[in-house]
Amino acid sequence: MNLVAANPLERLSVAIADDLAAVNRLIRDRMASENAPRIPEVTAHLIEAGGKRIRPMLTLAVARLCGYEGDAHIKLAATVEFIHTATLLHDDVVDESAQRRGRPTANLLWDNKSSVLVGDYLFARAFQLMVEPGNTRALTILSNAAAVIAEGEVLQLTAAQNLATTEETYFKVVRGKTAALFSAATQVGPVLAGSPEDQVQALFDYGDALGVCFQVVDDFLDFGGAGDGIGKRLGDDFRERKLTLPVIRAIAQANGEELAFWDRTIARGDQLDGDLERAMALMARHGTMESTRQTALAWADHAKRSLSPLPPHPLRDMLSDIADFVVQRVN
Amino acid sequence: MNLVAANPLERLSVAIADDLAAVNRLIRDRMASENAPRIPEVTAHLIEAGGKRIRPMLTLAVARLCGYEGDAHIKLAATVEFIHTATLLHDDVVDESAQRRGRPTANLLWDNKSSVLVGDYLFARAFQLMVEPGNTRALTILSNAAAVIAEGEVLQLTAAQNLATTEETYFKVVRGKTAALFSAATQVGPVLAGSPEDQVQALFDYGDALGVCFQVVDDFLDFGGAGDGIGKRLGDDFRERKLTLPVIRAIAQANGEELAFWDRTIARGDQLDGDLERAMALMARHGTMESTRQTALAWADHAKRSLSPLPPHPLRDMLSDIADFVVQRVN
Repeated sequence: MNLVAANPLERLSVAIADDLAAVNRLIRDRMASENAPRIPEVTAHLIEAGGKRIRPMLTLAVARLCGYEGDAHIKLAATVEFIHTATLLHDDVVDESAQRRGRPTANLLWDNKSSVLVGDYLFARAFQLMVEPGNTRALTILSNAAAVIAEGEVLQLTAAQNLATTEETYFKVVRGKTAALFSAATQVGPVLAGSPEDQVQALFDYGDALGVCFQVVDDFLDFGGAGDGIGKRLGDDFRERKLTLPVIRAIAQANGEELAFWDRTIARGDQLDGDLERAMALMARHGTMESTRQTALAWADHAKRSLSPLPPHPLRDMLSDIADFVVQRVN
Repeated sequence: MNLVAANPLERLSVAIADDLAAVNRLIRDRMASENAPRIPEVTAHLIEAGGKRIRPMLTLAVARLCGYEGDAHIKLAATVEFIHTATLLHDDVVDESAQRRGRPTANLLWDNKSSVLVGDYLFARAFQLMVEPGNTRALTILSNAAAVIAEGEVLQLTAAQNLATTEETYFKVVRGKTAALFSAATQVGPVLAGSPEDQVQALFDYGDALGVCFQVVDDFLDFGGAGDGIGKRLGDDFRERKLTLPVIRAIAQANGEELAFWDRTIARGDQLDGDLERAMALMARHGTMESTRQTALAWADHAKRSLSPLPPHPLRDMLSDIADFVVQRVN
């Protein structure tokens, strides 16, 4: 690997290679089930589909950055990935998705029933794993995150297709469905290390801001990117009638005719050829893609500034670079 | 209430009335959500639908029977009920059920998406609750139970409609989907109380046997009862093509013509008027209803005998009576 040219996630994966290999072994081990053969079938599909492992990498990195020398962070990193994977299985059922990371989803390959129940199994395995290190505060952080994630998902469900959805609701959903797991992933590291409270808070803030940034970028790219080459198509959120930030901001500035357009396409779901292009033109007219881009940049900046209470360290620099890397896609 | 005439569950609820009221308050409190209004709508529906609270009552009773004087058993009892309720929400999605306890199911009143995500929320709330007392062994027991439940559910899914399902697989499913939560509910009490290991084991065995008994009785009544008056109709399992104990035993003894009948009705799901009656006649011919009844009685007896290492106590007698009460419906 060309370490100079590599992106910050690749550089981080090299810096924590041994820990990451241990997490991957643990994930493979705990995803199995002797009693129900369907479980390893579905989970093997998920493992093979890959995924960047960004959340467990954050847990590993912050633990080492905080001087943690034990091995409980391996289990908590695997916990975080299991919660994430369980959430993806259930999300694909809820969104009726057919593709994830360029491959058919489990709900399509097997059925919704398998996705619901194997997701439950992974949640339970996550809780088994997080119990093992016996760190009560880490347990509290991770179980709270699981509840906040579910709340965010339910809120998103009820906000979907509702033109009255505000930015406040949008950010509440994002905090839940995305940022809660990032901030838990980055907060358990200093907790394990017994770091001072200002560092625990700093790493919570970093994860929270990075998670919000991550989601805002995702929502931006749905209208602004060239597809990510891994199965997501331009306009998927529009077709699924999701109220994402650029749409919410365009609706807030819409005139009567534009409101009728959003009502037809999003609230009533009556979409015609050319509607995606018209939606993008309306967002361009009101500058909401540009303002969404600015919002993403501001959150990346907030993530980087959050790291200031931490001592100088190559891993700290990589965390900072990761914030730039996440937001780089909108520039 | 006429305490003499009351059934053992009612007598137990009187004996632990204060604890049970505390559990019910805690359940109401923790089922709410400030951030996602859909959550309290769905959970209020579940609470109003009632339910016997048999699992949390067992946790409360065994803790007091073992001399526990703290209040952590309240949280663990609520945990057990939350896991149970989350499982019901997901079960109704998987089984595509329309009724539960005589009321429309949440998946029918709202949608499958809400049932999946509110179920996830209740799982997460369960884990938050179980973390609070800070008892690592209780945490291990309850998180293991959650994994075994999910395994049992997945195994049931893949065994459904499969005529080759053995009694061994049936009992593995029952151990998972039903007995695991009963045995966890009865094991955490002595663990909190710091009881001797033989009592911890005894109460695990009691819960396990009671749970198996409970499920075998349920499967028997699907063909043998007069309906339970709370929304379950005779033959529901047959229509859902479930391989329950009396059916598995009838298939094991079937001749060629009978096998063709089971293949058509269960494996292929091609059911005609009169098929339920024919299935019941085949089970009668091979005596599998009677042998299933005997199996239920044997498990109730096993549950009662498991209590022998425990000291004499009115609550111990009630637990014994509950085993008789569960199996009374097949007599």
